[in-house]
Amino acid sequence: MRFSSCYIPTLKESPADAEVVSHKLLLRAGMVRRLTSGLYIYLPLGLKIIDKIANVVREEVNASGFQELLMPMVQPADLWKETGRWEHYGKELLRFKDRNEREYCLGPTHEEVITDLVRGEVRSYRQLPVRLYQIQSKFRDEIRPRFGLMRGREFMMKDGYSFDADSAGAEQSYKLMYDAYTRIFRRLGLKFRAVEADTGSIGGNFSHEFMVLADTGEDTIAFCHDCDYAANVERAEVVWKGAPCAVACPEHEKVATPGAHSVEEVAAMLRVPAAAIVKTMLFNVDGKTVAVLVRGDREVNDIKLKNLLKAQDVDLAGAATVEALTHAPVGFAGPVGLDVPIYADLELQGATDYVTGANAADAHFKHVDLRRDAVITAWADLRAITAEDVCPRCGGRIELTKGIEVGHIFMLGLKYSEAMHAAFLDENGKEQLMIMGCYGIGVSRVAASAIEQNHDENGIVFPPPVAPFECILLNLDPRNADVTAKAEEIYAMLQGLGVDVLLDDREERPGVKFKDADLLGAPMQLVVGGKGLARGIVECKDRRSGEKGELSVEDIEEGFSQWAVAVRRGWEAQQA
Amino acid sequence: MRFSSCYIPTLKESPADAEVVSHKLLLRAGMVRRLTSGLYIYLPLGLKIIDKIANVVREEVNASGFQELLMPMVQPADLWKETGRWEHYGKELLRFKDRNEREYCLGPTHEEVITDLVRGEVRSYRQLPVRLYQIQSKFRDEIRPRFGLMRGREFMMKDGYSFDADSAGAEQSYKLMYDAYTRIFRRLGLKFRAVEADTGSIGGNFSHEFMVLADTGEDTIAFCHDCDYAANVERAEVVWKGAPCAVACPEHEKVATPGAHSVEEVAAMLRVPAAAIVKTMLFNVDGKTVAVLVRGDREVNDIKLKNLLKAQDVDLAGAATVEALTHAPVGFAGPVGLDVPIYADLELQGATDYVTGANAADAHFKHVDLRRDAVITAWADLRAITAEDVCPRCGGRIELTKGIEVGHIFMLGLKYSEAMHAAFLDENGKEQLMIMGCYGIGVSRVAASAIEQNHDENGIVFPPPVAPFECILLNLDPRNADVTAKAEEIYAMLQGLGVDVLLDDREERPGVKFKDADLLGAPMQLVVGGKGLARGIVECKDRRSGEKGELSVEDIEEGFSQWAVAVRRGWEAQQA
Repeated sequence: MRFSSCYIPTLKESPADAEVVSHKLLLRAGMVRRLTSGLYIYLPLGLKIIDKIANVVREEVNASGFQELLMPMVQPADLWKETGRWEHYGKELLRFKDRNEREYCLGPTHEEVITDLVRGEVRSYRQLPVRLYQIQSKFRDEIRPRFGLMRGREFMMKDGYSFDADSAGAEQSYKLMYDAYTRIFRRLGLKFRAVEADTGSIGGNFSHEFMVLADTGEDTIAFCHDCDYAANVERAEVVWKGAPCAVACPEHEKVATPGAHSVEEVAAMLRVPAAAIVKTMLFNVDGKTVAVLVRGDREVNDIKLKNLLKAQDVDLAGAATVEALTHAPVGFAGPVGLDVPIYADLELQGATDYVTGANAADAHFKHVDLRRDAVITAWADLRAITAEDVCPRCGGRIELTKGIEVGHIFMLGLKYSEAMHAAFLDENGKEQLMIMGCYGIGVSRVAASAIEQNHDENGIVFPPPVAPFECILLNLDPRNADVTAKAEEIYAMLQGLGVDVLLDDREERPGVKFKDADLLGAPMQLVVGGKGLARGIVECKDRRSGEKGELSVEDIEEGFSQWAVAVRRGWEAQQA
Repeated sequence: MRFSSCYIPTLKESPADAEVVSHKLLLRAGMVRRLTSGLYIYLPLGLKIIDKIANVVREEVNASGFQELLMPMVQPADLWKETGRWEHYGKELLRFKDRNEREYCLGPTHEEVITDLVRGEVRSYRQLPVRLYQIQSKFRDEIRPRFGLMRGREFMMKDGYSFDADSAGAEQSYKLMYDAYTRIFRRLGLKFRAVEADTGSIGGNFSHEFMVLADTGEDTIAFCHDCDYAANVERAEVVWKGAPCAVACPEHEKVATPGAHSVEEVAAMLRVPAAAIVKTMLFNVDGKTVAVLVRGDREVNDIKLKNLLKAQDVDLAGAATVEALTHAPVGFAGPVGLDVPIYADLELQGATDYVTGANAADAHFKHVDLRRDAVITAWADLRAITAEDVCPRCGGRIELTKGIEVGHIFMLGLKYSEAMHAAFLDENGKEQLMIMGCYGIGVSRVAASAIEQNHDENGIVFPPPVAPFECILLNLDPRNADVTAKAEEIYAMLQGLGVDVLLDDREERPGVKFKDADLLGAPMQLVVGGKGLARGIVECKDRRSGEKGELSVEDIEEGFSQWAVAVRRGWEAQQA
């Protein structure tokens, strides 16, 4: 394509309201525009990226025997009421009524619709498995849409669903998708990891997330240095193999801690390490208050709490609740005499003689033995894993890294088929429920995360399979007939080779063209200018490494092809 | 693809709730399923049809220099308030609020969003024209969704928009799309016509509809037998070149017409032809009542009335209004002494001595001279064209035919750029408004109309470019190793030729396979069976003509290729 006839409105300045680098660069490179909060227009180059990603997804998912269909974005409430998600999904589910006052929602995901379809079609085990997917705009009314395509409200998603007659089939469907996703993200040129994950509002038996590794990721991944264990910290089990401490400690004793609300303040005032303090956090769990205890140097993992209590909603209790229960401002809660269910992290069993809040303003207890002085409802794994913990699989060393969730596959089990009665007759004519799986890829988020992972101060550094153009060809002097003739000749040659190339034929200064070429992020740059041509060469630049070279005009086709292989190899090497 | 691993749930019975043939056949052929009123799931074969149509659209529209982008389906109300369409669009615009109580709608069309985009980007005439389009799901909350994909609520649409600096540019944009649409529908193998049309709720200066010709069409097209004039009857001008009649008639006189409400009843009772009766219809126009007069044998065209009065809403007045104004039940209204604005169709000037209602129960007037006895606000073209009228261009013979609107292009002029201030600086640095056009194709409706136009009692007869498969290859005896080997060999051969082929490898009786092959509508059928192979032949059938033949197994590749050309030529001949 020609830059002069392409709608690529690049911006010189970085937009003020963009918070993350992918958002800034997508705006600056003229690839997206914001319509309103969480809603983006994909301009032609942005759509080209989406299409390239979607096509890789499509090829690999088709190759796994899943078939593409397309369901409506608007979904009737009735189906969501059957599964109970109409009540439980929360405000992210945008609900509305049509002109006849019937209730609908905008689809954030399609388990209900596809289950309704399949239960209406399948009668016999002979018709199973059914493996279907779609690529479509989804809507989630995020409480805080942000980061451009990273967390928009309307976004492009691939969502797949499998229906099997038995567990072995369901596991095969799951594995087909696990393997397809692995091929997809590898083909897209991204550094990524598959990790064990929490199933969240989709539910089911177990799940894996596919994480693009990037320092700017909102998720933290724990992975083992010694085996292949990897999990979202939301999910990663923390192993505690110690024996409950049997050492007696003195009777607990109230001490004044005026103004010491935080663990740090209490530790400093009482001259004890944070690990000797018990942090007491109050949570509202489906409308009831509970207390969670973790060591002062740890963080509560509220997803573990939610799963432990099989709850729908878990929120930190507000100040009013804390004050009513503890008769003190926030910061002085403790388990001794506290009249709510108390859940204590496993490792707290490893010691006695803790400092805890005293449920009185400006006061703490010393010498607390949790077993002796408090009523612990249950001991459980309730904290987030840290780099000090060991691998739950092999005991090896745990490392933490940041990632962006771009894919998520779920073994749903019977959750939806039970609620919606999606059944079939087995070989013995007996009715059985279908075993389901579901499999998502955030296509537009993949585009953003490719940029989060690959950029520099000059712009985007697209992996070749994601780039809107593989090569950008700069005609530095469009008014010079010789330069233009050569640029056009090379443009035609590249198209003949099947290279997706953008010819910058604009009447702009060379500086503008170099800047835009870096900004747009095509992996290969070719520069045709008067000076080079006088020497019989065309300059080339590998956008990733920044390495520049010269290609002889005489055997440009051969030279380009060899260089293109080298550029692609460089990408593969850094991904490995 | 193989039938055995494709999700193609064909039905033996015609679904009871499907009213039109395309709806029935799409359901029976396992191509779509209804989710709920006006919402359809495209099963894999249905989606394949949509994709094939969309790709032809994309190629031709790209070739015209329009660029594809993608806008959100959810649109903020603010933009619709700027153009006034938030108030005027009616209930088809589905409105809702997000979690923050902000107003949005589901996009039925995207003039507001794209104008907002372009006004934010374009400053100078040098940046014009801007020509963009998208292919996307749209939502219109139809009062009566019906006919399957023909009039759904969520449907697939191509919508394009152009922004030009001057009229010449705008006309060029319009012509680019007119020509692209002509190429698109020709390539898709459809019999169609471009006709002049009313601009409706989109507005603008003029427009053309692209109509697929089909007896089941909801629209009526008037076209000239002698020149290339063609128009939707909603729009077709009726020429009246007569001179006002100067013949005096006797004073008007009230006659009893007990129980004669309709033109037919009055004509019979008074023994006059319907053409000698004036039909008086009362309408509510934006809240005010007006009367429209046409000859007794004519129909009022309410779109002409709406355009004449530049109104937003035109509805037939209810019985209560009629009774209050005429002091009589419905059926006795007349222009004499009627105290509302009266608009009379032009041809009524051609005579005097009419029969009209007398604004009294069971009574009519004879000998009415409209100029003498009534106060006519205006004479205007207010009736629908008929086959008795002449071509408004050349005076030639008018014919009427039925059509399905599949495309509509509009010269919008300044309607949106004025309301939303989409301006630029011209060569003299002076601010000007952009001149806009918009261009739609109902992609999913094209699929349905292809079937309305091409089907028989056995199923769909797809034009080759729309068919989900060009060829269906029947293995009549999958348990027979020789037959299966030959079928697989031919399957591989066809794939090698680039033919989009479905191999029916199911373990089903031959009768089931023949029926499904006809139902699915692939243009070419090949049948591999034991008997034929024994004679060294494979049967072939042209789905359109029904002609059967035999291809020698020995030189099947050559034979198939020749036959395929003949099948395609047959399609082209019937389209011409």
